[in-house]
Amino acid sequence: MSERDTTSDRYMIVSSDCHAGLPCEGYRPYLDARFHAQFDAFLAEREARRSETLKMNYDYIMGWETEHEEGLRGAYDPEQRDKELDADGVAGEVIFPDADAITGMESPPFGAGLSAGAIGDPELAFAGAHAHNLFLAEFCSGAPERRAGVALVPISYDIERAVSEIEWVATRPGIRGIMIPTMWRDHLPYNDPAYDPVWAACQAHGLVVHTHSGEAPMEEYGDNIGIYLAEVVWWAARPLWHLLFSGAFERFPGLRFVVTEAAAYWAADMMWKWDVYFGGGHTTKKLAEQMKGKISRLPSEYFGTNVFIGASTMSKEEIRRRHVIGTDVAMWGTDYPHPEGTWPDTVARLKKDFGDVPVEDARKMLGETAARCYGMDVTALRAVADRIGPTPADLGQDPSLRTDPDVVRAARWWREEYGTVLRN
Amino acid sequence: MSERDTTSDRYMIVSSDCHAGLPCEGYRPYLDARFHAQFDAFLAEREARRSETLKMNYDYIMGWETEHEEGLRGAYDPEQRDKELDADGVAGEVIFPDADAITGMESPPFGAGLSAGAIGDPELAFAGAHAHNLFLAEFCSGAPERRAGVALVPISYDIERAVSEIEWVATRPGIRGIMIPTMWRDHLPYNDPAYDPVWAACQAHGLVVHTHSGEAPMEEYGDNIGIYLAEVVWWAARPLWHLLFSGAFERFPGLRFVVTEAAAYWAADMMWKWDVYFGGGHTTKKLAEQMKGKISRLPSEYFGTNVFIGASTMSKEEIRRRHVIGTDVAMWGTDYPHPEGTWPDTVARLKKDFGDVPVEDARKMLGETAARCYGMDVTALRAVADRIGPTPADLGQDPSLRTDPDVVRAARWWREEYGTVLRN
Repeated sequence: MSERDTTSDRYMIVSSDCHAGLPCEGYRPYLDARFHAQFDAFLAEREARRSETLKMNYDYIMGWETEHEEGLRGAYDPEQRDKELDADGVAGEVIFPDADAITGMESPPFGAGLSAGAIGDPELAFAGAHAHNLFLAEFCSGAPERRAGVALVPISYDIERAVSEIEWVATRPGIRGIMIPTMWRDHLPYNDPAYDPVWAACQAHGLVVHTHSGEAPMEEYGDNIGIYLAEVVWWAARPLWHLLFSGAFERFPGLRFVVTEAAAYWAADMMWKWDVYFGGGHTTKKLAEQMKGKISRLPSEYFGTNVFIGASTMSKEEIRRRHVIGTDVAMWGTDYPHPEGTWPDTVARLKKDFGDVPVEDARKMLGETAARCYGMDVTALRAVADRIGPTPADLGQDPSLRTDPDVVRAARWWREEYGTVLRN
Repeated sequence: MSERDTTSDRYMIVSSDCHAGLPCEGYRPYLDARFHAQFDAFLAEREARRSETLKMNYDYIMGWETEHEEGLRGAYDPEQRDKELDADGVAGEVIFPDADAITGMESPPFGAGLSAGAIGDPELAFAGAHAHNLFLAEFCSGAPERRAGVALVPISYDIERAVSEIEWVATRPGIRGIMIPTMWRDHLPYNDPAYDPVWAACQAHGLVVHTHSGEAPMEEYGDNIGIYLAEVVWWAARPLWHLLFSGAFERFPGLRFVVTEAAAYWAADMMWKWDVYFGGGHTTKKLAEQMKGKISRLPSEYFGTNVFIGASTMSKEEIRRRHVIGTDVAMWGTDYPHPEGTWPDTVARLKKDFGDVPVEDARKMLGETAARCYGMDVTALRAVADRIGPTPADLGQDPSLRTDPDVVRAARWWREEYGTVLRN
């Protein structure tokens, strides 16, 4: 892109966090008929849940659904979806399940999406996942250059079967990643080398592995929203260090792992603490020795190569921390079509939050890092972006602002303060 | 203390994190004879563990134990201990179990100290705890003004029995707190109101409730030190939000909870996120409504009144973050007699880390906050400090440095940026 004018070109925005899904009953034709009776029970449970939720919050829910009726159809109608993305200035997107975040009426069968770990029965987990994957493959196939579909693979329930599902989704255009259950619960923890066939298959097919926030051990605190919010991010991020410190990225150097919609603020302190544990001073020498062979770089050095963060609608503070978290790590996302996201006012929100950010930093966080992480076709995305992307002027940015390389270098402050050097 | 010269007076240092314990076999006379056979098995397990650990790290362990042989006797010999505290400049201390951090040879019976949650058998958990509490009460009784003993109460195993143990320890001078198992494992989570009799008894007797880092679900990752380090702090801190968001500090406004030796850096971001969830903008209004009656202040406002952090040997970065974490929240600790602590070179370490900190901030973090949290006798502690405490000059501090109230006010930056106001 060197011949382009990077200070004025339209942004190539790739939303690292979007959702798609059929209205629940629409999954029936995609679901193995053996499970239709259980599917009826699932539908009844969903309906009951919607009634309960509506009782508590009727005005808010009905207001949202009525006002955005047309746009919300983009959850399963690709043509409508493109209209919404275009109007929102978004060229490409990464697609997770569970398009209805409020009442759960667009969830894959049996809750095989964001709470797959809670299903319990492996048969239902795989049946629900496959039904969604069939829909998703179809949904992405019309515009595979814009859509990076994330297939559902409940690896914790059955590793061999998971690998088969991965092999299948890998043949579908537009599928660029898999989502694994956030919690492994009573199954093997993700640090176990028994999962190696999963990581090997994902590496071989260039499929990015994800957790997405949502699941948490609510059986420990019921509907206490405070406790849920205090720890839901941690449960989504947890697999990251189980992979990293068990050496998964050493055995599979091409493996990429993304934590999505679980914020990004925590990454700065984690990198600091981890780097110091393994590369700082003589007191931690013993630890570094115990990790010998498991990791060959400083923990922070896996960020931006093997580890990325789907940071969705980043907070201003996370944007301020961009050089410590990494503009090559954190990826913006609109969370379309969820009401807590930025759709349909994404450009206004970007103007508010990125107005004082240099264009080159914003380009990375808003799209380039995601395009690289997901191996998307930048030429094709560019063509879309040149038509619909917002310009730096739309974001109120000063095109003369430059990123200061000294600031970037100093951002991971602990490297100098502790003199962190990996010892093995 | 207004008539004193706060810029030159010796520091009243209270270490919020010290450890004491008998050599394992020394606990026998304190242990109910019914458990002596099981105690023999525990001793054998400890010996085997020590042999294993020695094999891996002989030079380091024997070097430490030989060089510090006399000082390490302070783990159970109060006279020796006072000598060590004096030489280290420490006037008062908060005392946890497990004095031998390397090979575990000074742990209470059955591991009833830092890994009480892992014992499994309630009988052993309480028997081991009570044996230590008998020792601890005796140990603290000689100098109750200097020692704040933390008794062991494995509340997760049996709430009624826990309350009896609390009632007993409350009568012992020098006992100023209880430590609960870090993890509740298969027992009731600490958000459950079934624990109210425990919190009521602690409030009534002014006993500070603690978790101390150490325990983690290692059955999920074996001896993988990287994963352990990545999450051990979280497990120790976890009970904090289970108490806070279940309203324990509303029902028991005098209850104090301290997370010890689990760092302090995380507190800044937790306060930010929690305050914003419950007091920020219209998008979280729904959440605030769901918490109505459960909390009446902003989450951050419980810090420094109900919630404190035993931050042990704070990092420089945590000291830099002191105004967001709170100098009325974070309490220094030497971790004596653990090798990862600052003993026997505490003053040198303080000089290195607090040299550029205003004296008034350092006074709080090094002692005043702990004295307040634990309700210690400041006049008596002062008398000790006037004899053995280091001076600001010893710490290389510039006595003219003042804390800027504007900096303190701005430190919790989100309050202004989000306009956080609690809504109920």
